[in-house]
Amino acid sequence: MNSELPIVQIDLPTGFIDLGMGNPDLSLLPLDSIQQAANSFFAKHDPRPLQYGVEQGDGFFRRALADFLTKNSTYPVEPESLFVTSGASSALNLICILYTRPGDVVYAEEPSYFLALRIFEDLGLRVVPIPMDEDGLLLDALEERLSKQKPKLVYTIPTFQNPSGRTLIETRRRKLVELAQDHDFLVVADEVYHQLSYGKMPPPPLALFTNEVEQVISVNSFSKILAPGLRLGWVQAHENVIRRLSSCGMLDSGGGMNPFTSAVVRYLIEAGSLGEHVAALQGEFKSRLTVMDEALRRYIPDAEYTRPGGGFFFWVRLPDMDTAVLRSKVKEFDVDYRPGALFSSENGMKDYVRLSFAVYGAQEIDEGVKRLSDCLALR
Amino acid sequence: MNSELPIVQIDLPTGFIDLGMGNPDLSLLPLDSIQQAANSFFAKHDPRPLQYGVEQGDGFFRRALADFLTKNSTYPVEPESLFVTSGASSALNLICILYTRPGDVVYAEEPSYFLALRIFEDLGLRVVPIPMDEDGLLLDALEERLSKQKPKLVYTIPTFQNPSGRTLIETRRRKLVELAQDHDFLVVADEVYHQLSYGKMPPPPLALFTNEVEQVISVNSFSKILAPGLRLGWVQAHENVIRRLSSCGMLDSGGGMNPFTSAVVRYLIEAGSLGEHVAALQGEFKSRLTVMDEALRRYIPDAEYTRPGGGFFFWVRLPDMDTAVLRSKVKEFDVDYRPGALFSSENGMKDYVRLSFAVYGAQEIDEGVKRLSDCLALR
Repeated sequence: MNSELPIVQIDLPTGFIDLGMGNPDLSLLPLDSIQQAANSFFAKHDPRPLQYGVEQGDGFFRRALADFLTKNSTYPVEPESLFVTSGASSALNLICILYTRPGDVVYAEEPSYFLALRIFEDLGLRVVPIPMDEDGLLLDALEERLSKQKPKLVYTIPTFQNPSGRTLIETRRRKLVELAQDHDFLVVADEVYHQLSYGKMPPPPLALFTNEVEQVISVNSFSKILAPGLRLGWVQAHENVIRRLSSCGMLDSGGGMNPFTSAVVRYLIEAGSLGEHVAALQGEFKSRLTVMDEALRRYIPDAEYTRPGGGFFFWVRLPDMDTAVLRSKVKEFDVDYRPGALFSSENGMKDYVRLSFAVYGAQEIDEGVKRLSDCLALR
Repeated sequence: MNSELPIVQIDLPTGFIDLGMGNPDLSLLPLDSIQQAANSFFAKHDPRPLQYGVEQGDGFFRRALADFLTKNSTYPVEPESLFVTSGASSALNLICILYTRPGDVVYAEEPSYFLALRIFEDLGLRVVPIPMDEDGLLLDALEERLSKQKPKLVYTIPTFQNPSGRTLIETRRRKLVELAQDHDFLVVADEVYHQLSYGKMPPPPLALFTNEVEQVISVNSFSKILAPGLRLGWVQAHENVIRRLSSCGMLDSGGGMNPFTSAVVRYLIEAGSLGEHVAALQGEFKSRLTVMDEALRRYIPDAEYTRPGGGFFFWVRLPDMDTAVLRSKVKEFDVDYRPGALFSSENGMKDYVRLSFAVYGAQEIDEGVKRLSDCLALR
């Protein structure tokens, strides 16, 4: 996979198993479906998706996506409530630019997605961690904090959270939205794992509330359910939020964020290939999840974790370990993880690791966990 | 062209001639070349451009682009000095996020590209206008201003400026770079029109200085030379700047800004189609420029302007007119322009209009200028 000129973000030595990665398996990227969709696009001989696109994003693409989301949920999604982005990270960046100023306070789950924390840092925002339990963000802790200091926004990954795999329960979702309305802060819900459920369905996404509630913005992406390299995602939000996003200077100047790619993916959705691909991913990831669960129980019986119901990650506590310190030793065994402290805004979570079951097949997952266990046995 | 679901940013009533637009002509977008490039990409069966891409951008694409730029200039461009973006607007946005904070001062040419001014406004930056003459930014005025207040960055469109069509002469380019080094401010050079020269070659781009000088960042794009809907562009800069851009949280999270599209465009460049397309655009735009020049002289002999040597725009002074006030009347004649005040940071330039010769063919340009003249005759 190594080459003189770099293409992919992470390029590992042959044989090395990095169980820490959050990207999808290269072999699961649907190159053929995207090729067919591109063929359908070019067969129309319509140059309009090569022009500056409408700021909110191609209307036909938004309709195809809205139909897909409606089919896969219990409530209707309208094209008017969707705004096309070049991925969740750029959406998060845009939302912060328009709704915050450096020095503003952002609440984030503890632990949270470390690169979201980096985006906040780049923008000069101050992150305040709010603890979680197995049912997601602790609303008692949130309320207590709210009595002292009002945030501009609360960043949450409500479903199959990165890194913890936890899902915010429905009663807390409703309460969180009420708090956002009462205290007038934004809830930015990163819902990129919502479709990747391998057992019982998660509660409806926070996107559900956006028709009525201006304080909730749902950020989503094709990176986990199709291909990260497309740099395509969407925001679902109240019409006032959509209007604000669409009218910013960057969109007015550049037009919609990804007209060409969204025009291609439109045909992929209309052909039913997105639904089929998500179903295939669910089947494959469910079996990989089981493999990792069994490997952890077999090789590292001391490991403490809750088996996730979806997403990409196991969040594993290794009692009495400093996983950041252990990491250099682990790499000598040709295996890697992401240490818990990476996901903490207060340098905590030191005895946790994030392991992904999405990147590798069964044999490598088993071998990777075994290598980790071999390393732990030497401590 | 109108449709129930919007695709393009600007959708005009049939028969209306908007000479103000800054987008390319839909009929000049090279759909076939892009299709051939996409076919070449898919024929390789390489899924890597669908993965999270390397932050700086696909190495093979950067090499193809560097070779193209080298061939079209008098100095070599290296892939290492290029950073792939999703267009000039998003590059400008990213640079401002990383190098400025709200309240910081930005100098811009007076007049300047109004949507760049909007991006600065969204980020809370304070724009200070610096006057120009026919040879570009007035460096005496810049130096005088520098003695009072240091900016974080100077935004310039050095070649075939939007809206004025002016080009910064070579001696001033050198002096501007010296001033940036002496006073330690950034020069962000928007060089998107540099390739679109229809007469004698413009001076070398400010990109030329970036090997040696950290204070210059050249922003460029495929929007004017290929297709805006691709949302693909590049930055050329010093290695320290490239490193700073590549290591920000948004890039670390999302990977490179446009891996799939850049992999497609790589094959278009390698096939020689970009060079051919730019040459075709030069020929077509040169003849359209002549048509507009002749139409202005024929129909509006009072109009004061300098015939541009490249780019998209005529910057026309209509003595004693308030072009913003005139605009509603002009639209009744099924024609439009962009009023000068739009491009001013100090509500000046009221007797100017920006006219584009890039969007329409000869007949419509002639008819559009005639309609404008008919309207002016009634005042």
